This record gives sequence, structure tokens and C-alpha cells, in this order.
Amino acid sequence: MALKVYVDRISQPSRAVLIFCKVNGIAFEEVTVTLSKRQQLTPEFKEINPMGKVPAIVDGRFKLFESHAILIYLSCAFPGVADHWYPADLSRRAKIHSVLDWHHSNLRRGSALLVFNTVLAPLFGRTPDPQVASEAEMLLSKSLSKIELVWLKGNGKFLLGGFKPSIADLSLVCEITQLQLLDEKDWNRILGPHLKVREWIENTRNATNPQFDEVHRPLYKLKTDLIKQGVEKFTSKM
Amino acid sequence: MALKVYVDRISQPSRAVLIFCKVNGIAFEEVTVTLSKRQQLTPEFKEINPMGKVPAIVDGRFKLFESHAILIYLSCAFPGVADHWYPADLSRRAKIHSVLDWHHSNLRRGSALLVFNTVLAPLFGRTPDPQVASEAEMLLSKSLSKIELVWLKGNGKFLLGGFKPSIADLSLVCEITQLQLLDEKDWNRILGPHLKVREWIENTRNATNPQFDEVHRPLYKLKTDLIKQGVEKFTSKM
Repeated sequence: MALKVYVDRISQPSRAVLIFCKVNGIAFEEVTVTLSKRQQLTPEFKEINPMGKVPAIVDGRFKLFESHAILIYLSCAFPGVADHWYPADLSRRAKIHSVLDWHHSNLRRGSALLVFNTVLAPLFGRTPDPQVASEAEMLLSKSLSKIELVWLKGNGKFLLGGFKPSIADLSLVCEITQLQLLDEKDWNRILGPHLKVREWIENTRNATNPQFDEVHRPLYKLKTDLIKQGVEKFTSKM
Repeated sequence: MALKVYVDRISQPSRAVLIFCKVNGIAFEEVTVTLSKRQQLTPEFKEINPMGKVPAIVDGRFKLFESHAILIYLSCAFPGVADHWYPADLSRRAKIHSVLDWHHSNLRRGSALLVFNTVLAPLFGRTPDPQVASEAEMLLSKSLSKIELVWLKGNGKFLLGGFKPSIADLSLVCEITQLQLLDEKDWNRILGPHLKVREWIENTRNATNPQFDEVHRPLYKLKTDLIKQGVEKFTSKM
């Protein structure tokens, strides 16, 4: 039975797992779990992930959720995956774990809360909270500075001074691409000061294209739809 | 040069790393970084962890922070560590990663925010936020239910149906013991309904004693001090 990957391409960790599988030539079946239709909360999906979140995988009889755990598992379970994604070397591997662990309460938290409380909440029938959005933007900006000062400190093109991407690059960059859903003014204010981060996003995109752009297409489409909706709202007010 | 472990025993992930080293007979030097004196923000410590947090380790020339990354590194770098802490088996290891990743945005977030916004904030010269505390308690209670329903579902004494503890047991239990700083009434309200969680805490404590209690002693002392302060406050109001 082929590997099944349960995702919604609007979810940033889902995209990281999809890009990883495609770039590494892992055979899999993509199963879409549409978050805006609350399909992650159906009893059928909760058999796969009782936490009701994407991504999740089923590999034979083995079920797994949490994107970092999935990326590590796939790196080890499929022998064709190049070492730079999740190095066998103990120290390099430990540093990648350190980035991935840091990510949860910093970049991920700031970015996800900001995007939800500005753009996504109405799509899920919720009201955005401007106070939460403002605190999230502070955490996000601080996290982007830390990425430049700490993780992108070396001479390489990727995190931890790497010359080829790791699963940490993929996870963190897919989080940041979610910010494209923001208003252009907001995006410029937040990402503008971070030249190194913007270069690193491009490096990761180039290293994983054409799969990177292909997997991001629904995100780019959602962005276009949001702009259209914004224009329509504006027009209807005239 | 012996392994150096930078910790404050009042920090829950610091305790997890200390107990792990002691139980596994790893030779190390404990270096205290007192959070209430903001020693984690000194330039000297920022050379070790530029994020300004504990725990962190220095092993020869190798520096590492983030407690889960540290626990994994120590499990692999020191050959005397028994397999149950961080199993070599790919699937069992993947499940442990899944618990550890889930922990960050669920149990950890709920517990840490609640304890800070009820008990610890004044010790750090900050004002507790009751709204944040209330939301944190909701997340914490939901996380405790998920631990019982998902991670403690098996017949074993530990997470994922284990019969011996893993680094995930240690990390999560040390987070929950932080709740002992709460008022007894609050502790009973939150932990009372979760019999399976309380049994699992005792199982983890028993499996790692006397080191577990020894490392927790400063937490128990802080608890006693807080009660005394409470009594004094009450008396001074009479």
C-alpha cells in the first residue's frame, strides 16, 4: 500500500511535507482534507489523527502526525533521500532539531496567529482579534531577526550555514510563505527589513523548484481571490 | 572537558535534562543560570545560547539549546543510555518525535502561560494577565485530556503504551510538575479529573527516583515560600 499523505495545501506544514515528498521522488497518494470545510474533524480523519490536524501520513499500517516528526520519519524511512535533508552526523542533526524545536513557539506562533487574525479568520467563520494580531506581529518580527542573527549567521545559502537545504529550511520557509496572504503593505513592513531572510526564501524556492511553486499554487490562488474580494468589497461601498 | 549543563531548576525543561543526565550516569557539571536575576540575558550566556534561554549544553566545542534537541543529542552521544529513552526503532522514535512536537503548542503552552500568569509573574517584576491565565487553563485542560485519550491509550505505564519511560515522558511530566506552584484549589480543579495523568506522573517519578525528587527540590521549596508569602500577605491584611 502506497504512502498516503493527508494535507490541505493552504496549511504551511502540509506544503513542507508535500514538497519534501515530491523533490525526493517518494511515491505517495495525496489526500486532501479541506480545513475550511472542517474535514479534519470528521470521525474518519480522527482515526488517522485524533488531534484533528493536517498533515498526517499513513505508511502501511503506521500512522503519524506532526509535520516535523513526519519529515524526519520520511528522511529515514526512504533510502533515496539525500543526507543534507536530515544529516546522519550527530552534531548537525542536533542543530536541525534545535531549529525545529525553536520554530514552534517563535516563527510558527507569530506567523500563524498573525495570518489567522488578519486574513484567514473570516474564511473560517471567526472574528479576527486585532490585539492578538499585533502581539503576533511583534513575535514574528523578533523571530525573523533571530533567524538572521542566529540561524543564517554562516556563509552558506541555508540555515546553519548549509550549502544545501535541510528539512528545517523547508519547514520554516513554508511558514513564511504563508505571509503572502497578507496585504502587500503589511508584507513589506514585516519582511522588508529582512534582506537575508528574503534571499534565503529564494534560495530554498530555487533549490526545490518546480515542486515548490506547484505546491504553493493554491496559496497564490487564495491570495488572488482575497485581492478580488477586497476590490469587490471596496466597489460595493462606492 | 566535561559536559556542561546550563540550567535553572525552576525551569521545567531544565529539570528534564538534569534528571536525564543523573539517571543515565552521564558525567556533567551543572551551571546555574538564575532566571529571576536575568542571568540568561548576560553577554556571557548569550555566547552559549543567543536566544537567552535555559537549558543549554556545551559538550567540548559543541553548543546546543532547546531541551528536546538536547535530550535527543544526549541519548545518541552517550552510549550508556538505555534504548527505551529514545528507541533506535524508526517507528517508535517517530512516535516520540510526534509527542515532543505536539507538546510545544499544547501542554507546554497551556501550562507555562498559566503558571506565569498566576504565580510567577510577580517574581519577575511583571503583572499577571487573568485573561491569558484563563485561556491558558482551557488549553491546558484540553491538553491533559488529549494525553489521556491519545498518548496514554495503551496498557503500559508510560506514553505510547511504553513499559519504560522515554524522553517524552520526562519532558511532559516535568512540565506538569510545574503546576505544583499553583494554589492547591487550582491544582485540584485542573489535575483532579485526570486520574490517568496523575498515575503516569507517579510512574515517571518512581522510575527516575531518587534523582527526580532531588532535582525538583528547589521547586518544592519555592512552593513552600509562596505559601508562606501568601500567609504573610493574608496576616498583614488582618
